Amino acid sequence: MKLTLGAVADRFDLPLHGDPSIEICGIANILEAQQDELTFLFNPAYKKHLTTTKAAAVVLCRDASSQCDKPCLISERPRLIWADIAELFDATPKPDGRQHPSSIIGNNVVLGDDVSIGAHAVIESNAVIGDHSTIGPGSVVGANVRIGQNSRLFANVTLYHDVMIGNNVIIHSGAIIGADGFGFEFDDVRGQHIKIPQVYGVVIADEVEIGAGTTIDRGALNHTEIGIGVKLDNQVQVGHGTRIGAHTVISGCTAIAGSMTIGRYCLIGGAVGIIDNITITDNVEITAMSLVSKSIKTKGRYSSGTGLMPGKEWKRNIVGFKQLANLLRRVRRLESGNGNS
Amino acid sequence: MKLTLGAVADRFDLPLHGDPSIEICGIANILEAQQDELTFLFNPAYKKHLTTTKAAAVVLCRDASSQCDKPCLISERPRLIWADIAELFDATPKPDGRQHPSSIIGNNVVLGDDVSIGAHAVIESNAVIGDHSTIGPGSVVGANVRIGQNSRLFANVTLYHDVMIGNNVIIHSGAIIGADGFGFEFDDVRGQHIKIPQVYGVVIADEVEIGAGTTIDRGALNHTEIGIGVKLDNQVQVGHGTRIGAHTVISGCTAIAGSMTIGRYCLIGGAVGIIDNITITDNVEITAMSLVSKSIKTKGRYSSGTGLMPGKEWKRNIVGFKQLANLLRRVRRLESGNGNS
Amino acid sequence: MKLTLGAVADRFDLPLHGDPSIEICGIANILEAQQDELTFLFNPAYKKHLTTTKAAAVVLCRDASSQCDKPCLISERPRLIWADIAELFDATPKPDGRQHPSSIIGNNVVLGDDVSIGAHAVIESNAVIGDHSTIGPGSVVGANVRIGQNSRLFANVTLYHDVMIGNNVIIHSGAIIGADGFGFEFDDVRGQHIKIPQVYGVVIADEVEIGAGTTIDRGALNHTEIGIGVKLDNQVQVGHGTRIGAHTVISGCTAIAGSMTIGRYCLIGGAVGIIDNITITDNVEITAMSLVSKSIKTKGRYSSGTGLMPGKEWKRNIVGFKQLANLLRRVRRLESGNGNS
Repeated sequence: MKLTLGAVADRFDLPLHGDPSIEICGIANILEAQQDELTFLFNPAYKKHLTTTKAAAVVLCRDASSQCDKPCLISERPRLIWADIAELFDATPKPDGRQHPSSIIGNNVVLGDDVSIGAHAVIESNAVIGDHSTIGPGSVVGANVRIGQNSRLFANVTLYHDVMIGNNVIIHSGAIIGADGFGFEFDDVRGQHIKIPQVYGVVIADEVEIGAGTTIDRGALNHTEIGIGVKLDNQVQVGHGTRIGAHTVISGCTAIAGSMTIGRYCLIGGAVGIIDNITITDNVEITAMSLVSKSIKTKGRYSSGTGLMPGKEWKRNIVGFKQLANLLRRVRRLESGNGNS
Repeated sequence: MKLTLGAVADRFDLPLHGDPSIEICGIANILEAQQDELTFLFNPAYKKHLTTTKAAAVVLCRDASSQCDKPCLISERPRLIWADIAELFDATPKPDGRQHPSSIIGNNVVLGDDVSIGAHAVIESNAVIGDHSTIGPGSVVGANVRIGQNSRLFANVTLYHDVMIGNNVIIHSGAIIGADGFGFEFDDVRGQHIKIPQVYGVVIADEVEIGAGTTIDRGALNHTEIGIGVKLDNQVQVGHGTRIGAHTVISGCTAIAGSMTIGRYCLIGGAVGIIDNITITDNVEITAMSLVSKSIKTKGRYSSGTGLMPGKEWKRNIVGFKQLANLLRRVRRLESGNGNS
Repeated sequence: MKLTLGAVADRFDLPLHGDPSIEICGIANILEAQQDELTFLFNPAYKKHLTTTKAAAVVLCRDASSQCDKPCLISERPRLIWADIAELFDATPKPDGRQHPSSIIGNNVVLGDDVSIGAHAVIESNAVIGDHSTIGPGSVVGANVRIGQNSRLFANVTLYHDVMIGNNVIIHSGAIIGADGFGFEFDDVRGQHIKIPQVYGVVIADEVEIGAGTTIDRGALNHTEIGIGVKLDNQVQVGHGTRIGAHTVISGCTAIAGSMTIGRYCLIGGAVGIIDNITITDNVEITAMSLVSKSIKTKGRYSSGTGLMPGKEWKRNIVGFKQLANLLRRVRRLESGNGNS
């Protein structure tokens, strides 16, 4: 894949400083880009690398361009243009619009135009798959599943029965959607936990992306719902009946319990925990590895935890943590003038 | 699926207030139930919704029924009855008792009566699968595995060799049982970690349920053991040689190291961490996202971590946390009357 | 499998105290070993069990052997010898060097000598697999993937396109390598997150082991790289473009964000969180469930979090935690002699 700078500039309507005939073969970060690669300046802290980068050219905002001797493409939103340019160099294999002969298609399955079904994929009975959608090799699509148009399941995805997937949805390998929610009731007569059948499904709206190994359970008394434009990273867990609002982004390994609601346009960090039966309003940001243990009613940024410390220092401080309630009392007593009593 | 209220009342021997000929088509939560659905009152805080729910009828305890104008089914254990009623509406496809022609069955495999094997499943040599058990599509059952009766592996489950599974066990998609435990010994002569072969297996007792994407490693010097009636949610990790006692319940994304023991009837929250070589006694409850870093010898509820706070407030407090040991000393000095020295 | 003590002693050149004709059939921990099993004394705290163990013989260091009436094999590194001896009893099925007829091999795939390909595995076009490597049943190897020699993918592994795997690499079931990194840019005009194509791959060096369900994303502006001899436990997440240095060991369920760097010979505990765009130097140890939220420039051991406490005590202390900044001010005031003002 080779493109001239001029072709890139024309395609995305970007002002170009420099020779339009320069050829680029790829993109790379500013520290490692080679002579035939295009790079980007996203962060002003990296300006110092403009003089040393080997890159053929740099995408940056007008302000920074004055400090750049290299050929450059001007954009006030270099990260958005990055998305466009990266697509030109994306080598992800395109679906071929065919059903591999080793795939197994159940009774009454309805396939739209140009549906691709990979080797050893299994589509169970009564599933409906929309035009231009793709089922990766080894994936299993359960009975009665509905998948919209232009959606793509990569290899080894599992959808249980009655899951609904919208249009333009991407589901990465190992994701599992529609497994039974974790619902048991302890029967003290029998001394054991009784399973509560999870009779609802999962509804995934359009434009959702679901990461590798992410699990979204089916609901018990309502569908689990993932709103339009939601992006879930790898190894996220979404409990039964939970609802995630449109355009919320959730980083890897976050554990979300069941029967809770997250608003729209939230940013949930990685490895966060969120308990059941609470509500998080719109536009909430949760920093990495925080535990959300009650509802959040006001937008803003929230955290829990302690900072990282060298082990010895940390050990001394957690001794203090275990005496905090006591310490509070002692300070109160000192304030009342009884410190020595 | 349609049932009359009278039929439900008769089936589970529940007192019915109201017209037994009313038909219900499903169950739903009290806020969203439609006119042809049955709902439940589990939590007294939801009593106020009894007057507004559209549900055809409500399952509730006798005390609450006096405040309900709707038809109602009386039960003092509405959550247990929920399990029974939900089963009537459970649309999970039933196994068909057949071996799909695309499945691969190894040498000397022994299949009981009515065993179902899904499309593209692989059963390796010498495995034994009991009557009425089901292997989902794409699942791989390793050599010498033994599975009891009435157990069900959903799609894309992986069992390594020599894993033992009891009766009435449910294993959800993406679960992996019997991968090598994480055992290495650093060889400082060679400057590298040497792998310790994990020569034991995993033993899963009867009535266990294992969530999607959960991993249970095989042992190095003893079997990893999951006791009768244990319920593991999605994306739980169980390290090599660990033993989990009967009827313990573990929520999603909990990470359990190897060579440790958890007692019976414990409730372990989601995203909990548990270190190796410790013991947790029976009837212990661990709240979400706590770290268990030493043995627990007394039953009860345990926690770690800090509460969630708005980011700015949190930043100020973690500054305080890092000075806690120092603060303790300063308060002690103030108490001894030397505050100004 | 039966071996005499004499044969084991000869094979690994270990001094033997006792009858060389004693037969052993396996290995076990010191508390549970049976009469025909060999056990090990790793930890001096277990010396007291030397008199009660049923084991046929014990591997231990010379110092401890004086307190052992049993036959014993002497080694100053009993854990390293354990690795060797365990291998003798390892029943993991050996690859058969054949391509199962149900596997699907794409165009222009190049297979070395003695490559094993399991039932229902899928190898996409242009992949290259080196001599003596093994692809487990149900695994999917993407287009243009390169795998070195003597590497083994267990069942149901997924490699996306253009992933590079070295020699002697072990990848456990459910691992997913090369899924798209989590890269989006918010377009406030359209009010939605725009996907940034992840055009780089993943490079895994020699001697790496990757646990079950672990995910390693492909990079956006550079390859994600896993150094020689790195060991990743189960359910670890490695974000796009991150680099992990040689011989670093990472325990289960650790979440590592993208675009960060971990040094060589680090030990990262289980369920740790590591944020993006930071650097951890060589020889750093992070204890379980800590959050690394800034770069670590000095080797050593680091922690975050609070100790585990009984729930009531913990609740009182987190009240204190939320007042820590305030408490610091109050103590300062007391120290300045204004406690009562």
